[in-house]
Amino acid sequence: MSEGRPAGSGGANDVPERSRAAPGTVYLVGAGPGDPDLLTVRAWRLLRTADVVLHDSLLREAILEDLPPSVEVLDVGKRGEVRTEQSAINDLLVERARAGDAVVRLKGGDPFVFGRGGEEAQHLAAHDVAFEVVPGVSSVLAAPGIAGIPLTHREHASRFTVITGHETPEKDGSSLDWDDIAGQIDRGGTLVILMGVRTLAENVRALRDHGVAADTPAAIVQRATWPRQAVVSGTLEDIVERTREADVKPPATTVVGEVLEVHDEIEDDLCPFEPA
Amino acid sequence: MSEGRPAGSGGANDVPERSRAAPGTVYLVGAGPGDPDLLTVRAWRLLRTADVVLHDSLLREAILEDLPPSVEVLDVGKRGEVRTEQSAINDLLVERARAGDAVVRLKGGDPFVFGRGGEEAQHLAAHDVAFEVVPGVSSVLAAPGIAGIPLTHREHASRFTVITGHETPEKDGSSLDWDDIAGQIDRGGTLVILMGVRTLAENVRALRDHGVAADTPAAIVQRATWPRQAVVSGTLEDIVERTREADVKPPATTVVGEVLEVHDEIEDDLCPFEPA
Repeated sequence: MSEGRPAGSGGANDVPERSRAAPGTVYLVGAGPGDPDLLTVRAWRLLRTADVVLHDSLLREAILEDLPPSVEVLDVGKRGEVRTEQSAINDLLVERARAGDAVVRLKGGDPFVFGRGGEEAQHLAAHDVAFEVVPGVSSVLAAPGIAGIPLTHREHASRFTVITGHETPEKDGSSLDWDDIAGQIDRGGTLVILMGVRTLAENVRALRDHGVAADTPAAIVQRATWPRQAVVSGTLEDIVERTREADVKPPATTVVGEVLEVHDEIEDDLCPFEPA
Repeated sequence: MSEGRPAGSGGANDVPERSRAAPGTVYLVGAGPGDPDLLTVRAWRLLRTADVVLHDSLLREAILEDLPPSVEVLDVGKRGEVRTEQSAINDLLVERARAGDAVVRLKGGDPFVFGRGGEEAQHLAAHDVAFEVVPGVSSVLAAPGIAGIPLTHREHASRFTVITGHETPEKDGSSLDWDDIAGQIDRGGTLVILMGVRTLAENVRALRDHGVAADTPAAIVQRATWPRQAVVSGTLEDIVERTREADVKPPATTVVGEVLEVHDEIEDDLCPFEPA
C-alpha cells in the first residue's frame, strides 16, 4: 500500500513499518484536544499496532473505538471511579515495556505540555526503558483555533504566554509572575490559560491588580472539539459574569488579549469544528 | 467503513462525510512540523477530498505525495523561485471558493500561530467566504517534544512564552518586552523562539542584557521531523558558538530554561523521531 495512507483495507496490518509501535518501547502520545479527527496520523497508527494503551480519563471514547481486538486498553485516569496514582502508572509503563510490549501512553493534548509527560519520561529513563515522544495538537492552540482566535497577528500580538489555571495567583507570596504576565498583555502579547474555569475569577483579579485594563478582550472556549463546545467572549470587566451566566464547564481554555478583535471580525464566516 | 479509519481501500472515496472538504469553503489547515505522520487525521482527509490545495514552500514533499489526481496542487510559497504576494494568495482563496471549489490552504505548523493565518481569515470574512480552522501540531511543541524537552514540568517550569526570532530585539527603542520575557525565565518559565537561527546571537544578548543568568540552559532543535534533524544544547554562555560550530540551519526552534535539565536526564533513552 501507499506510505501516505494511514491504513488500507487490511487495517492495522497495512500500517507501514516505521509507523508501527515497537516491542519494549513506550510511546508518550498526544491525543489532541478530543475529537478523533485531531489525532495525528502517527498517533492513529501507533494506537492500532500497540499491545497496550494506557489512557487518561479526559479522553473522548471515539478515539478508542475501532481499535483491533489485539490492543488492550487500560484507563489509568486520575478522575472518575478508577483513580490510579502517578507512581502506579509509572510502574505499569516500565513493567509492560520490560515484558516486551509495545506500549502507548495516551495523554490529552500534547504529552509535554502540562500533564506530567516529562515526569513519566524521567521515570522511564531512570529504568532504562526506551521511549518516544509523539507530539499532539495541544488545546493551547486547538481551542482558540477552532473558535477563530489567532494567538498571534501582525497587528495585534507578536507573542503568547501559556499558564495553567490550576496555579493559585500570588503563590509563595510573590506577585512578580503576574507583573511579567500583565506586562506581556499590555505590550502586545496574548495570554492563554489552560483549565482555568474554577480559578477564572481569581486570575482575572490578579491581572486587573497588576494593571491590565478592564476593557482588555477575553474569551473562554468550553469543551473544544467535544459535544457542547461553546465560546463566551467579553472583557476582563465582564468575562467572569458572562461565564457564570453561560454555565461554562471544564475543560475550557481562556484567551486574553487584543487578538480577540480579530475573532469578532471573522466569526460570522467561521464554520465551527463539528465534533464527531 | 469504520468512522475511525482515515481511509479504507477506496482511498478518498471512503472518507466519512463529516471529514470531507465541502464546496465553496476554505480550510485553513495546519500541516504540522514537516513529517507526514504528524498531519492530523482531519488534515489528511481534507487534503484527499479537496479540489485545490494551496501550500507554503516550507513543506515536506511527502505530505503531497499520493493525493488523488483530482486534487490540484499549487505552491504559493514565499520562498524559492515562485514568489506569491500575500494579496495574491488572499485573492486566489476567495476566487476558488466563489467558483465552488473545496479549498485547502495548507500552512506549516498550526495555521493560527505566526504565519498570517489570522490575516487570511480576515480577508475571507471580509469577502463573505465560509472558512474553517483546522489546528495542527505547531513546531512550538513538536520540536521540543521530539527532542525530549518538556515545555512545562512540576519542578522546573509552570508556564511558557513563545516569540519569533524574526522580531528585532528592542524594536521601537523599548526594552520592556525583554524585561517581561527575562523575568519569566528567571521565575520558572520556559522561552520558545521560533525561526531564530539568524537572530540567535541578538536574542541571547537581549536576554543577558536583561539579567538572565549566563548558565541558563538553552538548546536549539534544527529541522524537527525533517531529514538532518539535530539538537544542539548548551547555556546562554555558549549556545551561539555551539550553534555556529554545528552549522545549524533554519528552520529551527530554540528553547531557553531550566526544563532543559530534564532533557539531559532523559536523552539517553529517548528514541528520536525518524523522519520519513
